[in-house]
Amino acid sequence: MTEIKDQSIQTFLDELGSKSATPGGGSAAALMGAQGAALVSMVCRLTIGKPKFVEVETEMQEVLDKAEALRSQLTDLIKSDIDVFARLMSKYALPKESDEEKALRSDAIQEVLKDATDVPLQCAYACLKTIELGKIAAEKGNPGVVSDAGAAVMAAYGGLKSSALNVYINAGSLKDKVYAEAKLAELEQATKDIDKVVDGIYQTVKARL
Amino acid sequence: MTEIKDQSIQTFLDELGSKSATPGGGSAAALMGAQGAALVSMVCRLTIGKPKFVEVETEMQEVLDKAEALRSQLTDLIKSDIDVFARLMSKYALPKESDEEKALRSDAIQEVLKDATDVPLQCAYACLKTIELGKIAAEKGNPGVVSDAGAAVMAAYGGLKSSALNVYINAGSLKDKVYAEAKLAELEQATKDIDKVVDGIYQTVKARL
Repeated sequence: MTEIKDQSIQTFLDELGSKSATPGGGSAAALMGAQGAALVSMVCRLTIGKPKFVEVETEMQEVLDKAEALRSQLTDLIKSDIDVFARLMSKYALPKESDEEKALRSDAIQEVLKDATDVPLQCAYACLKTIELGKIAAEKGNPGVVSDAGAAVMAAYGGLKSSALNVYINAGSLKDKVYAEAKLAELEQATKDIDKVVDGIYQTVKARL
Repeated sequence: MTEIKDQSIQTFLDELGSKSATPGGGSAAALMGAQGAALVSMVCRLTIGKPKFVEVETEMQEVLDKAEALRSQLTDLIKSDIDVFARLMSKYALPKESDEEKALRSDAIQEVLKDATDVPLQCAYACLKTIELGKIAAEKGNPGVVSDAGAAVMAAYGGLKSSALNVYINAGSLKDKVYAEAKLAELEQATKDIDKVVDGIYQTVKARL
């Protein structure tokens, strides 16, 4: 089977819009984040090597390296979301006749639910880092492509908010409440000012257009 | 040459992140919008035909039809952004030696700049309509996939805000200020409450998870 990242955009969109549960919002979130990271890279590449921007060249090279690592991670997460959902469904399909079967099935579901919480959480954090890089690109990058830095931030923001929804659902089904609460608290803390931050970057971009 | 929608996701992301100016934020915006529309369709398809949701079936079918039309339009806009940019660059490359050449070149640039304003404007309006459909899907669709409706709205919102930046740039270069101001005023009017609307939908989704 063709890996999802090797599928055409048209096929991906057709499958995203189909009755099939995957790819769904989790994969779309990862693709939004990957688009954001790619756009950060583009802005860096159109800044680096130009005499006019020599003062920020070292910083832009660092941003580029980090953005490319995030893009690779986020591209992989398009598939991870599908894989963990398939694993979860296979556990829900386990027999549940006897008490022993019921207990085994429940344990198996709970184990995969931790991964199903962790995958969108990884996506959310990668999107958050992409927003931070997009902020630097928007403030210090080539102003000729500042709108692309703005689009980078909006794409990563879409990815962040979408993946957060998947964290909330899956964490909500976890019986290990201590684990779930810790993960949610961490995410809330990391994203508490993000709406304002993103709006601020957007205004910066508009002012530099 | 392979049409962009028939390229693989990996190739699209590689080109988005490359030094080449296209695909850039405009194409990414259209792809975000198309992902949003696809996710609206998915929610509709997983609502329609289930006895539990029979009361909203007619409305969900209408939403599905509109979402599929928007998905098709937004998928086409991924390419339109690249095409109009190429046309614009070809006009900038026209000779500018004599006064006559300068005048012809300027007129040619201005003519394409209207299209370069119109393409992201179409994208912005299609994303706006996708947000409206996503709101219905989030409020009335199958709650089992409400997070996908939330992701749909966040994707379309990212597309809207990103394409708006491209409208601002290109409208700003238009010499026909009356035309430019009219287009900008229309967009501002259509999107004036969108940040609050989207935040409201997001809270609705979180509450239905």
